[in-house]
Amino acid sequence: MEFPQTERTTLKRLPKRGVYDRHLVYGILDEGFICHVGFAVEGQPFVIPTGYARVGEQLFIHGSQVSRMLRTLSSGIDVCVAVTLVDGLVLARSAFHHSINYRSVVMFGHATIVDDREAKLAALFAFSEQVIPGRWNDVREPTEQELRATTVLSLPLVEVSAKVRTGPPIDDEEDYALNVWAGVLPLKIQAGAPINDPRLPEAIAAPSYTLKYSREKN
Amino acid sequence: MEFPQTERTTLKRLPKRGVYDRHLVYGILDEGFICHVGFAVEGQPFVIPTGYARVGEQLFIHGSQVSRMLRTLSSGIDVCVAVTLVDGLVLARSAFHHSINYRSVVMFGHATIVDDREAKLAALFAFSEQVIPGRWNDVREPTEQELRATTVLSLPLVEVSAKVRTGPPIDDEEDYALNVWAGVLPLKIQAGAPINDPRLPEAIAAPSYTLKYSREKN
Repeated sequence: MEFPQTERTTLKRLPKRGVYDRHLVYGILDEGFICHVGFAVEGQPFVIPTGYARVGEQLFIHGSQVSRMLRTLSSGIDVCVAVTLVDGLVLARSAFHHSINYRSVVMFGHATIVDDREAKLAALFAFSEQVIPGRWNDVREPTEQELRATTVLSLPLVEVSAKVRTGPPIDDEEDYALNVWAGVLPLKIQAGAPINDPRLPEAIAAPSYTLKYSREKN
Repeated sequence: MEFPQTERTTLKRLPKRGVYDRHLVYGILDEGFICHVGFAVEGQPFVIPTGYARVGEQLFIHGSQVSRMLRTLSSGIDVCVAVTLVDGLVLARSAFHHSINYRSVVMFGHATIVDDREAKLAALFAFSEQVIPGRWNDVREPTEQELRATTVLSLPLVEVSAKVRTGPPIDDEEDYALNVWAGVLPLKIQAGAPINDPRLPEAIAAPSYTLKYSREKN
């Protein structure tokens, strides 16, 4: 099933890299957890990194109720959100053909406030699951005051496109004869050993979801 | 030495996280290599991920001369660029106090085209060094035609701020008594083993800069 292609999501360059497949878009969004939110105020663009969660056909972002970004977005202005996963460095035989393997999603739309208490709590659960599945069950749930102090915005996944580059370098035919190593250096996000909070009692061990953490979904 | 603080770069929330120190800003920019470029066309915001290089007090971005983004930016419109490094997941005892350790830079300004042949070549060298130091010496340099086909834009690092969160979770005092593991799960970008290009002759070995690759600067 594909997202409809619109003027804004139609790639002008390298159109073969543009994809509208829902499954692929969701896969990218589910592997990431940081997005860059873009909006303009009186023509001045702002780009702000923040966490997100995808639930079905919605992207949620959240923060303090006094956040300038969330207050600005909740007025319903145009917003653009990008999620980018870097998969590797593409090392070609010429400087010119060097590239990066990546998967990215860009969406356009308008945010709306999630006001309903249960929907808000569900979104907060989704943030937790997006970042580190299993964590929510272990921790103290939000109080009513904490819920009120948190603003959750919903962005519909309607006008969305992905861009993907994979595979080896594509060199000029005559450059393949050069005595130069070429290939891909894969990159991924790797978790280190969990670091105990200084005030943690010795008897409390790090949970398995911190020891086996991976952003890759199978 | 500090960047001057302006209306746009003054943090309204959590001001202790905002920093204007030049050394710290450059350190973040030098550790990253992907930025998110934000601009608005008739009020519509766009956010596009792309590579960059920092040289002194300039940030360079580049691409094909027919790139829509580069053509738009070269007209001198307002641009906002964000670079974000994610350092770890901050796992608190309550859902509410979960956070992310990160270092990010946001800059505002206007792009100008780098036209001079030598300056353009120097910027392309800088892109290569930013992504993978040592690579440039091994590969075929750009031809005059390739140079012409490439647009390089320069953005002055003048109106810039960083945001940084480090350290353990900060829990509500009464939550420290909870029987919950808390701490930080460090995250970093890790390179895997280099993957040979399918057309690479067996005799050509992967260079040391691919085998010992790290984004961390010491």
